[in-house]
Amino acid sequence: MKSFHPPVRTLMGPGPSDVNPRILEALSRPTIGHLDPAFIQMMDEIKQLLQYAFKTENELTMPVSAPGSAGMETVFVNLIERGDKVIICQNGVFGGRMKENVQRCGAEAIMVEDPWSSTIDIDKAEQALTDNPDAKAIAFVHAETSTGTRSDVEALCGLAAKYDCLSIVDAVTSLGGIELLVDEWGIDAIYSGTQKCLSCVPGLSPVSFSERAARSIRERKSKVQSWFLDLNLVMGYWGNDAKRSYHHTAPVNSLYALHESLLILHEEGLQNAWDRHDLNHAALVVGLESLGLKFVVDKEFRLPQLNVVSFPTSVDDAAVRAALLNDYNLEIGSGLGTLAGSVWRIGLMGFASNKSNVLFCISALGNVLATQGIKVEVSKAVTAAQAVYSA
Amino acid sequence: MKSFHPPVRTLMGPGPSDVNPRILEALSRPTIGHLDPAFIQMMDEIKQLLQYAFKTENELTMPVSAPGSAGMETVFVNLIERGDKVIICQNGVFGGRMKENVQRCGAEAIMVEDPWSSTIDIDKAEQALTDNPDAKAIAFVHAETSTGTRSDVEALCGLAAKYDCLSIVDAVTSLGGIELLVDEWGIDAIYSGTQKCLSCVPGLSPVSFSERAARSIRERKSKVQSWFLDLNLVMGYWGNDAKRSYHHTAPVNSLYALHESLLILHEEGLQNAWDRHDLNHAALVVGLESLGLKFVVDKEFRLPQLNVVSFPTSVDDAAVRAALLNDYNLEIGSGLGTLAGSVWRIGLMGFASNKSNVLFCISALGNVLATQGIKVEVSKAVTAAQAVYSA
Repeated sequence: MKSFHPPVRTLMGPGPSDVNPRILEALSRPTIGHLDPAFIQMMDEIKQLLQYAFKTENELTMPVSAPGSAGMETVFVNLIERGDKVIICQNGVFGGRMKENVQRCGAEAIMVEDPWSSTIDIDKAEQALTDNPDAKAIAFVHAETSTGTRSDVEALCGLAAKYDCLSIVDAVTSLGGIELLVDEWGIDAIYSGTQKCLSCVPGLSPVSFSERAARSIRERKSKVQSWFLDLNLVMGYWGNDAKRSYHHTAPVNSLYALHESLLILHEEGLQNAWDRHDLNHAALVVGLESLGLKFVVDKEFRLPQLNVVSFPTSVDDAAVRAALLNDYNLEIGSGLGTLAGSVWRIGLMGFASNKSNVLFCISALGNVLATQGIKVEVSKAVTAAQAVYSA
Repeated sequence: MKSFHPPVRTLMGPGPSDVNPRILEALSRPTIGHLDPAFIQMMDEIKQLLQYAFKTENELTMPVSAPGSAGMETVFVNLIERGDKVIICQNGVFGGRMKENVQRCGAEAIMVEDPWSSTIDIDKAEQALTDNPDAKAIAFVHAETSTGTRSDVEALCGLAAKYDCLSIVDAVTSLGGIELLVDEWGIDAIYSGTQKCLSCVPGLSPVSFSERAARSIRERKSKVQSWFLDLNLVMGYWGNDAKRSYHHTAPVNSLYALHESLLILHEEGLQNAWDRHDLNHAALVVGLESLGLKFVVDKEFRLPQLNVVSFPTSVDDAAVRAALLNDYNLEIGSGLGTLAGSVWRIGLMGFASNKSNVLFCISALGNVLATQGIKVEVSKAVTAAQAVYSA
């Protein structure tokens, strides 16, 4: 066996996305101790930068030392107790994962289901809240990574406030890519991932909790079922006390990388980052539609960072993705769950959301579709996309 | 805020330990997808290299995508169900953490307590097994990071076999540093960390399960309470099937680093690595005793990779550690739990277990002790340690 030298890919799937070289460089800086005063100071900066990224003043804002799935679990196991009732609006894979989490807490999941690729129906959500006045929380996904659909977080959080329950938001794919206003929208608990629009390496999950949610955690009747994710313990390490106590060994180098990625976002500015995602999405839409591909989500609910398109039934899904990977070093995503085999998921996330990637993807995908007998005019598609940038 | 440039430390605490530059370089290689065929192939190599490191043929051998605490939790939440009974032999902080894990599974923890800094009493453990014939497992720590004490894993696993229960071993600080023979000793479940004797970055936890333990997980009556750590799901991604299914996004770059660190261990050879830890420990003992420091653990139970020494009561613990950090960029560990304020924990783990570190530590610590009014002959101590290498 030899050292592993990965191929150099362009990552335009559902994540991980291309990592900014500045972040890879930060990642490889010398490891120091997780209680080193210099490290504690950097942790404090990460908390501030995360507050900026989430648009929140929540004190309980920090990265969980594991991927987004662990961030989801952190939120549920800390907020939910045995016997609680949680309303979950599901319109894709990740709503189903929320259900699993709730049930494994010994709580009841009330499911409100919408068709995949549709946005969450606000009226149905309100009906569920009316029918279940004892629900502790309503949970939903902001940007469904399985379908490329955006939900109306502001309206759903408004319902949570009206019916006096906690709002839980999955922002794994939204943070840094589309508008997300934790305080203004009244989000009580939110989790994200580092490997999507933050363009950082996978392995960490930023979370944030309102004071109302934090109080609910402090005042639990039972212990959190996970020791590793118990925020009442974790905050002895990530909290604001001058003296930090050891809970677990933090993933030191990954946190260097997160610090750098948040700094890059801060330098660009949130609004500029959101605008950039919109612009590159607009160009990709023009190019892909020009190749004859169809977007499966209605325009107003599409995610600019995750473009889900269906392809002609004559096309061999796996062969196209393999050709892109092997001949172009380009990764795009396959369909997930009920959409497996019928769509591709093309990410334009964070650092990967740029003009070069847009034009490269249209060109490569067009060439590969041509080998599948699909009539495409590749240069026309590229030119059309290019024109979006000049407009 | 600016990019974070950590000070360059020598890490001789209880972990993280100095990371081999080869590993930091591997860490920063370009990120690829967690389902990329090239990545899957590297994952298979990691499993083989972990089998080598653990001396096992266990098929269920893989790294958990989070730090050692999550590895501990993986073992307990997968093996233990509500109402089960687990015997825990505790002789330090980490046995207590096992108790927390067992209780949070809704199971009963039968504690067998030994004094801190003592090894686990085999007779007391056997008595507990006799008294609790319905115990599902017996759990204990191989190398107690809080006290620097080694336990007799072979004897304890022999008891587990005799009383027909599962053996659960915490090897966070032992893997790669001291003899550890998973198959020969009959260990059923084991977890470790990457930031100790593997000299890799913190954030991953290698685990391994015997076929008996794996069967017990497959045949659970209830779902695992953690979705993120549920091995019945995780193995869809880490298992041997040609088709790997997405469970969570693996920490891609950290796994590059783990691959490299295991390769380095394989190149050196396990026996050579263990011998190296013994030699550097022997030299450090001579040097520290020459400075008047006392080892708190009896010689036969001492860990070569974690040296726990008490210091004269006139010495200001915090001031000494701060001086080492600020004036020498040298990190050593403070005492933990009941040993806080009365001992230092000096790690010689993995890459950090080398002659330069040994001599540097004796010299730096000697100089700082002198500023505290302790009579020391620093050059004599260094010379005495040096002589161990020439012997």
